[in-house]
Amino acid sequence: MEFTHFNEDGKARMVNVGEKPDTERQAVARGYISMKPETYKMILEGRAKKGDVLAVAQVAGIMAAKETSRLIPMCHNIFLTGVDIKFEFFEEQSTIGVEAIVRTVGKTGVEMEALTAVSVACLTIYDMCKAVDRGMVIKNIHLIEKSGGKSGHFTREEILPWQK
Amino acid sequence: MEFTHFNEDGKARMVNVGEKPDTERQAVARGYISMKPETYKMILEGRAKKGDVLAVAQVAGIMAAKETSRLIPMCHNIFLTGVDIKFEFFEEQSTIGVEAIVRTVGKTGVEMEALTAVSVACLTIYDMCKAVDRGMVIKNIHLIEKSGGKSGHFTREEILPWQK
Amino acid sequence: MEFTHFNEDGKARMVNVGEKPDTERQAVARGYISMKPETYKMILEGRAKKGDVLAVAQVAGIMAAKETSRLIPMCHNIFLTGVDIKFEFFEEQSTIGVEAIVRTVGKTGVEMEALTAVSVACLTIYDMCKAVDRGMVIKNIHLIEKSGGKSGHFTREEILPWQK
Amino acid sequence: MEFTHFNEDGKARMVNVGEKPDTERQAVARGYISMKPETYKMILEGRAKKGDVLAVAQVAGIMAAKETSRLIPMCHNIFLTGVDIKFEFFEEQSTIGVEAIVRTVGKTGVEMEALTAVSVACLTIYDMCKAVDRGMVIKNIHLIEKSGGKSGHFTREEILPWQK
Amino acid sequence: MEFTHFNEDGKARMVNVGEKPDTERQAVARGYISMKPETYKMILEGRAKKGDVLAVAQVAGIMAAKETSRLIPMCHNIFLTGVDIKFEFFEEQSTIGVEAIVRTVGKTGVEMEALTAVSVACLTIYDMCKAVDRGMVIKNIHLIEKSGGKSGHFTREEILPWQK
Amino acid sequence: MEFTHFNEDGKARMVNVGEKPDTERQAVARGYISMKPETYKMILEGRAKKGDVLAVAQVAGIMAAKETSRLIPMCHNIFLTGVDIKFEFFEEQSTIGVEAIVRTVGKTGVEMEALTAVSVACLTIYDMCKAVDRGMVIKNIHLIEKSGGKSGHFTREEILPWQK
Repeated sequence: MEFTHFNEDGKARMVNVGEKPDTERQAVARGYISMKPETYKMILEGRAKKGDVLAVAQVAGIMAAKETSRLIPMCHNIFLTGVDIKFEFFEEQSTIGVEAIVRTVGKTGVEMEALTAVSVACLTIYDMCKAVDRGMVIKNIHLIEKSGGKSGHFTREEILPWQK
Repeated sequence: MEFTHFNEDGKARMVNVGEKPDTERQAVARGYISMKPETYKMILEGRAKKGDVLAVAQVAGIMAAKETSRLIPMCHNIFLTGVDIKFEFFEEQSTIGVEAIVRTVGKTGVEMEALTAVSVACLTIYDMCKAVDRGMVIKNIHLIEKSGGKSGHFTREEILPWQK
Repeated sequence: MEFTHFNEDGKARMVNVGEKPDTERQAVARGYISMKPETYKMILEGRAKKGDVLAVAQVAGIMAAKETSRLIPMCHNIFLTGVDIKFEFFEEQSTIGVEAIVRTVGKTGVEMEALTAVSVACLTIYDMCKAVDRGMVIKNIHLIEKSGGKSGHFTREEILPWQK
Repeated sequence: MEFTHFNEDGKARMVNVGEKPDTERQAVARGYISMKPETYKMILEGRAKKGDVLAVAQVAGIMAAKETSRLIPMCHNIFLTGVDIKFEFFEEQSTIGVEAIVRTVGKTGVEMEALTAVSVACLTIYDMCKAVDRGMVIKNIHLIEKSGGKSGHFTREEILPWQK
Repeated sequence: MEFTHFNEDGKARMVNVGEKPDTERQAVARGYISMKPETYKMILEGRAKKGDVLAVAQVAGIMAAKETSRLIPMCHNIFLTGVDIKFEFFEEQSTIGVEAIVRTVGKTGVEMEALTAVSVACLTIYDMCKAVDRGMVIKNIHLIEKSGGKSGHFTREEILPWQK
Repeated sequence: MEFTHFNEDGKARMVNVGEKPDTERQAVARGYISMKPETYKMILEGRAKKGDVLAVAQVAGIMAAKETSRLIPMCHNIFLTGVDIKFEFFEEQSTIGVEAIVRTVGKTGVEMEALTAVSVACLTIYDMCKAVDRGMVIKNIHLIEKSGGKSGHFTREEILPWQK
């Protein structure tokens, strides 16, 4: 087994995917941000009333998916056919879950786009709330599902931060 | 206590910091990426010999610090005076730690720049190794230290992913 | 009838266009910028002689078309096959018209790219001339024609700013 | 009187502002987007309930202010200390007004940043609603106020699209 | 013979390539950077041990290839299927050669992407070493090979800076 | 003597310049592009009449100066107070010279900005003319002058490509 992102001199390269066929591909990633119960409550209340932190995080995550190849050096710049972001709420742990679903029709997968969208959505929540809670922690950003392409279907259970 | 990132209509805004003085500011953030022992070994060996995953992650993290205000919607675009990234190695847990130290002389803090640098360095490690290990998990991205500015010195213990 | 840019939770998303076929598409947009007669004269004279405001606006508009998906949050990032910009001159009203024609072969239309090109070309004219005329007004940016894609051919008369 | 954005060869340049002092500066710009009454109603209802077009436009406008110097060729890249965007509602004319207020402490004004924020917020409204109303028109983007800097205070009445 | 990048008014445009078929294309470009023998030695030693200037230049060149259409005004934004960069060492002339190989499957060639990758890799070497050698010179950036597309195969000898 | 762009682990960093005072700084860089006599003639004629290659290169070079810190990994993102670009004509050698003058008031020099502006202006000339002359060569990009900052005034003769 070998890393593919290095050339024969052992230097980084952007792997050639020119011979791969265009196929429909999808990736789903998740991550979490934990905070003080008061911060959690403020976000949820703001959502209902005014000052919607999650609406800003939603936009930031979608825009970040489109920026992925400019952030991750060896990532291909690709056309995304769709991006969606959803939030999950864990009141007991005062934690918000972020899920990104990214789709393309192309020669490479969109795992990095989904993981980047989740990361930036979480960072945006941190930014919007840091004046009241500097101790928030972003946890367990991971790939949940990947379909399309030669490497086949990948799927796994989400890993909640408080599980083991 | 109130979120500062909303205007009187409850809509998001970029907070005005025009009256704040220019002060020297620094932020330190950390995060971790856990992987299979074989992947961990491949990264460490490549580093010694050829195919240096971490050299690419280092560059990506530094460049991402400069992109922060373009990713995080309400973040101010600021001049960074210095950015450094360091790696820590936890062989037993086959986990790599990433620390970013960001400095500025300006009107706002650089927490978001440090957290973004850590996130993108971790995402780059994922990207470089995903062909051999799709199950890597990015963990516990958090602020360790923040100095300069009115809100004073913030510091806290690093939270290793396997602690509690 | 419904907005398509929201998911089932009512949050913004980038609509999935993965099932749409690749077709040749074109969009034409127009807009205007009105100014003092002296400013209008200076632009026209500079064009003939030296100091060509419109050459800069032309380049800016074309480059902006390529930036559209980074400015408009829910816009797909797409490959543009061609972009052209033309100017029209209305001496009596000391107004310059800007027309952008954008083409692609793809799964989504290029209206936003044409409208963005017109907007940025107008903003650039403003920027180049603001030292002599801060009161310029950008008027009536609108879509004139759109072809290709499922929604069919759209066409309408240009709306000159002084009509009605 | 002369355009400042050209050098002695008559070619475009980015004017040198190095000798100007740093002063607090503010610019306010406005623009409008007119649509069918049904579209107007859908936006207003969505805002109250779900599917908030204006929340996305708000974020897009603020982010665009930070991109101004990358869109407008001769514009200086500057640190913005604050950006805010507000909407006005003209039910009778089924028109939405957009106002951007941009602040800096620096050597050049922020008119272009305010005008760009308004333009991109309007374009985003267009994008979010174009599936139901392709005939929307963006109208009368203009500067309302500018303070700070050598050229002094500029202020003028807003020009509503249906006036005159 | 005519420049294709101008419209019928003699103004710049992005040429329409919509009718061109998608074909596999490749471009190879080269350039050189000459320096003091001591600087050359420091780079080579750093590479073996620590402080790898060329690893940073490698990443910068690859990322720049993806930025080409945002830097070169009339360049199409395209999907790159692969990018690789290699270095050559001319000890006698204390000169480093940079070669970029860029591939796509698309409607336009990737010469500009290869030339831009070489340019930015050379600029990065300059930046990393300028504290010890401000007099480095970037030399002879040129196209070596181009294949795919209607204009056929182009190939030529590399032009070393000290030839002729 | 040591490279400054590496930390104590030998990994790349963005050097901290926080303690440096803000001073007025200027850098001047030059480069050349050589071509067939017919291409040279076409550019010069187009300039007089229509189809101005150099007007596009001028805009591209100025915009690239502002992008420098996003292209060159360890470069600081700084506020530029002015950018100007000039062309020189060497008919006998059918070569065009490009000079960029960049100014700032800040903590770091602007050599990289001037060198990047020259590089991108040359690349743009190549792009605009490549349909008629694929064999153009970009030559001798180098720093001519640098003033301001602790390292003092640097100045040297321009190195014309055909000298020695």
